[in-house]
Amino acid sequence: MKELEFINIIKNTLTDSSFIGDDTAFAQGFVFTQDTLVEDVHFRLSTMSAFELAQKAVAVNLSDISASGGVPCYILISLSLPSCLDSSFVEGFYQGVEQSCSKYGIKVLGGDITGSDKVFVSICAIGKAKKQIKRSFAKEGDVIFTTGNHGSSKAGLEILEKNLAFDEKFIQAHKLPTPKIKEGAIIADVCDSPALMDSSDGLLDALYKIALASSVTLEVDFDFVPYDFDIKKLSSDWYNWVLFGGEDYELVGCARESDFSKLQEVLSLHQIGHVVAKSDFPVIIKKDGEYRQITSEIIENMSFDHFKKGPQ
Amino acid sequence: MKELEFINIIKNTLTDSSFIGDDTAFAQGFVFTQDTLVEDVHFRLSTMSAFELAQKAVAVNLSDISASGGVPCYILISLSLPSCLDSSFVEGFYQGVEQSCSKYGIKVLGGDITGSDKVFVSICAIGKAKKQIKRSFAKEGDVIFTTGNHGSSKAGLEILEKNLAFDEKFIQAHKLPTPKIKEGAIIADVCDSPALMDSSDGLLDALYKIALASSVTLEVDFDFVPYDFDIKKLSSDWYNWVLFGGEDYELVGCARESDFSKLQEVLSLHQIGHVVAKSDFPVIIKKDGEYRQITSEIIENMSFDHFKKGPQ
Repeated sequence: MKELEFINIIKNTLTDSSFIGDDTAFAQGFVFTQDTLVEDVHFRLSTMSAFELAQKAVAVNLSDISASGGVPCYILISLSLPSCLDSSFVEGFYQGVEQSCSKYGIKVLGGDITGSDKVFVSICAIGKAKKQIKRSFAKEGDVIFTTGNHGSSKAGLEILEKNLAFDEKFIQAHKLPTPKIKEGAIIADVCDSPALMDSSDGLLDALYKIALASSVTLEVDFDFVPYDFDIKKLSSDWYNWVLFGGEDYELVGCARESDFSKLQEVLSLHQIGHVVAKSDFPVIIKKDGEYRQITSEIIENMSFDHFKKGPQ
Repeated sequence: MKELEFINIIKNTLTDSSFIGDDTAFAQGFVFTQDTLVEDVHFRLSTMSAFELAQKAVAVNLSDISASGGVPCYILISLSLPSCLDSSFVEGFYQGVEQSCSKYGIKVLGGDITGSDKVFVSICAIGKAKKQIKRSFAKEGDVIFTTGNHGSSKAGLEILEKNLAFDEKFIQAHKLPTPKIKEGAIIADVCDSPALMDSSDGLLDALYKIALASSVTLEVDFDFVPYDFDIKKLSSDWYNWVLFGGEDYELVGCARESDFSKLQEVLSLHQIGHVVAKSDFPVIIKKDGEYRQITSEIIENMSFDHFKKGPQ
């Protein structure tokens, strides 16, 4: 079963499901999110230290807060781990948490620690909401933009999993993504109701969800999509890594032309396309002069499915 | 390794560990908590339906909010489950969530759903803080009180695990505990800085933690400790079930004599002892005219350890 089906079940079961579907929820001046990383689904202990895991788990959650234009302030952490892992794992993990707290100016409010067969990290992050930003706010005529490279995290994962030619920058992109906190806050400040998401599940996944939620079509010119050109040395499949790889935690958004001009004065952004009136396809990618129409089947087949076994 | 050792590692690793150690944290007028239930550690799918599991997972978290005198308002839910569980599990689970939301007047703010080998439920609960209530607020001369029966949940678990004589009320106490939300709010309203905890990890565990945090000794008269007398029919070990069983989610607290008198006018509470000056033992239990001094070794050996395999 796919995540979207689960979300539909949840929406149909809860009387008040107004908060379900987005990655974050706004309430009482705050924005809330919760995300879980599971051993052998989202990471492997053979390639990820406790120190790195903690930082990634925090980053994943802060990225969602930033993609809502919130300023992260608190986290709660549930850590479940097998009894074979000793105190040094917990120490390394919390050193990673401490590093992230210091880097992003957040505090640990609590959480719990339990036994399990595999390592689970579930983090709830809370930010101050500057204004409500949602994926459903894209409008015809908007500029589509992103904050940085796509595909690098997938490249790092492939290097680790398949022993491809070692390249530290890709491994770092995979293990230690940087949530775009400053960028999210500036976008919230400058823009009037922008649509925004992070690319946690891939660039195309983000574009597709924005298009569906906003009832528009997103036309993207691949020539303007930023990626590290060294990715081409790793695999002939690099094009799909850029579009579907996921876990880059860049921001992907749509803003009015005038707001985007103001944003460019203070942020280094990549304009990758335009929002057009809704057509039969939510996303259209232009590459080498040809147009590729993105269907929901393509998204489902290519994007990360939490219910497949093993990291991506 | 024991939970207390983990907490010490976390306290020593984080620069700002002021929130670590209590079950909840107060910030910005709200009180926060996060607790996880793990299949085959906290529950078994053979004895617990998805509907029941959801309600228990919510109750466990709301109980912590209530024990801080907070009024629960929001939850976020991370659900991880094996691919063999189908949509009916998710539907049953969220029907349980809906039941709890309706019963306790709370809303689901979000969360996520991921794959895993076992079922994991990690819930973050947020309440409005009426005032700060902590386990460290007990004072010499205080009345020690509790809201209801202890040992019933353990009795229910033993019936399920060991096929003891069936008794529905104990099974219900184990599967569907009721967080003491009304009681927590009234205690917060009426009392000046009471010490309060829930008995999630057992009556004695709560008494012991209050005593340590408050630097006092708690003298408890077992004759006044409430329990269902039918528990005696189930096992000769019933006395330990009452003291150490856990998962009853009753409130255990200490209040000034005058505040306790006021509480008794509006709540049905059980006075079970008095707080005295700190002695060599944090908790002393009087039973059949004899005094049993509770050491940390007794607590550690008898209480629930999340790092043992299987439910209790």
